Amino acid sequence: MGPHPAVADVRRAVRLSLADLAPGDLVLAACSGGADSLALAAALAFTAPRAGLRAGLLTVDHGLQEGSARQAAEVVRLPLGLDPAEVLTVEVGTAGGPENAARQARYAALSRAADRLGAAAVLLGHTRDDQAETVLLRLARGSGTRSLAGMPARTGVYRRPLLELGRATTVAACAALGLTPWEDPHNRDGRYTRVRVRERLLPALEDELGPGVAGALARTASLCRDDADALDAWAEAAYARAVASGAAARAGGAAAGGGTAREDLPGPGGEAAPDSALSDIPQVVLAVPELEGLPPAVRRRVLRRAAIAAGAPPGTLSAGHVLQVDRLVTEWRGQRRVDVPGGVGAVRRYGTLIFAVARRRRDRSDDV
Amino acid sequence: MGPHPAVADVRRAVRLSLADLAPGDLVLAACSGGADSLALAAALAFTAPRAGLRAGLLTVDHGLQEGSARQAAEVVRLPLGLDPAEVLTVEVGTAGGPENAARQARYAALSRAADRLGAAAVLLGHTRDDQAETVLLRLARGSGTRSLAGMPARTGVYRRPLLELGRATTVAACAALGLTPWEDPHNRDGRYTRVRVRERLLPALEDELGPGVAGALARTASLCRDDADALDAWAEAAYARAVASGAAARAGGAAAGGGTAREDLPGPGGEAAPDSALSDIPQVVLAVPELEGLPPAVRRRVLRRAAIAAGAPPGTLSAGHVLQVDRLVTEWRGQRRVDVPGGVGAVRRYGTLIFAVARRRRDRSDDV
Repeated sequence: MGPHPAVADVRRAVRLSLADLAPGDLVLAACSGGADSLALAAALAFTAPRAGLRAGLLTVDHGLQEGSARQAAEVVRLPLGLDPAEVLTVEVGTAGGPENAARQARYAALSRAADRLGAAAVLLGHTRDDQAETVLLRLARGSGTRSLAGMPARTGVYRRPLLELGRATTVAACAALGLTPWEDPHNRDGRYTRVRVRERLLPALEDELGPGVAGALARTASLCRDDADALDAWAEAAYARAVASGAAARAGGAAAGGGTAREDLPGPGGEAAPDSALSDIPQVVLAVPELEGLPPAVRRRVLRRAAIAAGAPPGTLSAGHVLQVDRLVTEWRGQRRVDVPGGVGAVRRYGTLIFAVARRRRDRSDDV
Repeated sequence: MGPHPAVADVRRAVRLSLADLAPGDLVLAACSGGADSLALAAALAFTAPRAGLRAGLLTVDHGLQEGSARQAAEVVRLPLGLDPAEVLTVEVGTAGGPENAARQARYAALSRAADRLGAAAVLLGHTRDDQAETVLLRLARGSGTRSLAGMPARTGVYRRPLLELGRATTVAACAALGLTPWEDPHNRDGRYTRVRVRERLLPALEDELGPGVAGALARTASLCRDDADALDAWAEAAYARAVASGAAARAGGAAAGGGTAREDLPGPGGEAAPDSALSDIPQVVLAVPELEGLPPAVRRRVLRRAAIAAGAPPGTLSAGHVLQVDRLVTEWRGQRRVDVPGGVGAVRRYGTLIFAVARRRRDRSDDV
């Protein structure tokens, strides 16, 4: 008799996600002890040896609740046959809210452990339901295609084999294997936005729009991911062209105007910036004619990229900032510098857009 | 004293949307008598003469409720100074559900009237809230970027000047002008999905995720629209290249294979189709090498376009169908024909993908 269908589904998903690894590679399951990551860890323990891979487990003790150390110790003692099996103890800060701070601390610890242990992959237990929650959360922020793409199946060392499976499958797999998942009290705490999305919004969506909403949201994410990938590829090529032409135009413009583009970048308030304030900092010059022929969606991606290359922090650079820079291309009437986060300014000179840090940037931790 | 801010907002939105029209052009407001379209019609009556435009009103009597004729007659009698002001009486069928059937009948009548009256534009009163509802409805269907783009500000003769304004603004504008909007009982009828989205889901989203969700959904729509436009432009260019190379490859392949590509298209079941079954029908030939270099999001748009050009009805051609055709490009191992709706089949021959109606298409009303 074969395994329970849910167990088979989870194993198949894990096996497929590891198909490109080489014999002897180490794969780690990040496991909280909840149903998703417990089913994942069990499937990895079954699958890895059959694929010639080594398999281990990491669990993170966030130290946020009474007894978290004991719970973490129980996870590493689970008789799954995963080795190494380690508890990573982290200090959770407060920056960006409790969910965000816990996530940042968790990923930092997982990445360090993966490095230290020489792991080829770290598996995360996110399911289709998590993906649906993510899409809904991001939708409510008014973000674009890339953001709606949700969590990627792979990013760096991390892999999410269970994104196509529902939470019901991991719960059923644990039950079939006689594993008792841990119920994280945080997962029921209505102070967390994600918990409210899970417990109230998704059920309300299913009630009003019909069943299958989670699957539909995950499908939306997948389509948006393909679209965002294609547009990013286009923007990357267009950025390279605009930079190449920008270098040529800048040389020509500097000769004609009697100065370098760098000297022309005004400081805050529009006065000419002293050259010293602009030395040793990233500067990006784009040719405006290359930008004019692009569709808005691609042009704004190119401008966003240029601002980031010049030092704007991606997290605080909004669509509104990029739109303002875009007006230097599409509604040019001699505007002054457009300021974006990170002390970066964009000016238009001699048919180029110049992005640079216009004043000495202070090292402020909230900038990053 | 200037007009009430809400009145000014609606007028400004209408004025901006008409800026490209020529003096003497006729603009019609589609008006149900509800707050959105009533505020729209009033703003058009104010704005049009100042822009040298003629302004009229259309209202549709769907004949679905007791007293609908009387209500329609009241709308055309409103003392707004719009002329012509006509009631369009329509018969609503049942195809695709009551909301869909009413919409189809309404737009058909509006388009006919616009033609007959020689209108340059028909204004629709959809607001940011309608846009948010649309995005949420489509999201729940698992559709892609184009679908999430929601309702366009312009399409053909139709314009939606109020997409950036909230429903609260149109309600306030009506109140400030002393106009009493009609409350369509259908707008409170929980049997309609859109009503449930409006009355239950959007408030639930605001409760759980914070205020501003409608605005965020509308922003998402706008970003998705730009993305979809850029990808469609790319796909259009790629389609043209693939067709041009396909014609060349087909000539070469036919010479090498001793037959025409058309003769190679198997009929249902895989047997060779009699030539007569394929005559006088659209056929599209794409060069596979041109397709292979494209990102999936663009390639699938090209394939979708080819299937539609060959006769597949856009409404029933799903992402799943396109994905199956895509496997003829990306996972080629000698597959047989892939059938898509409208009796269209896709086969791979001599390095080309051929889309054609593989059997005599029956005129079936449910095909269209």
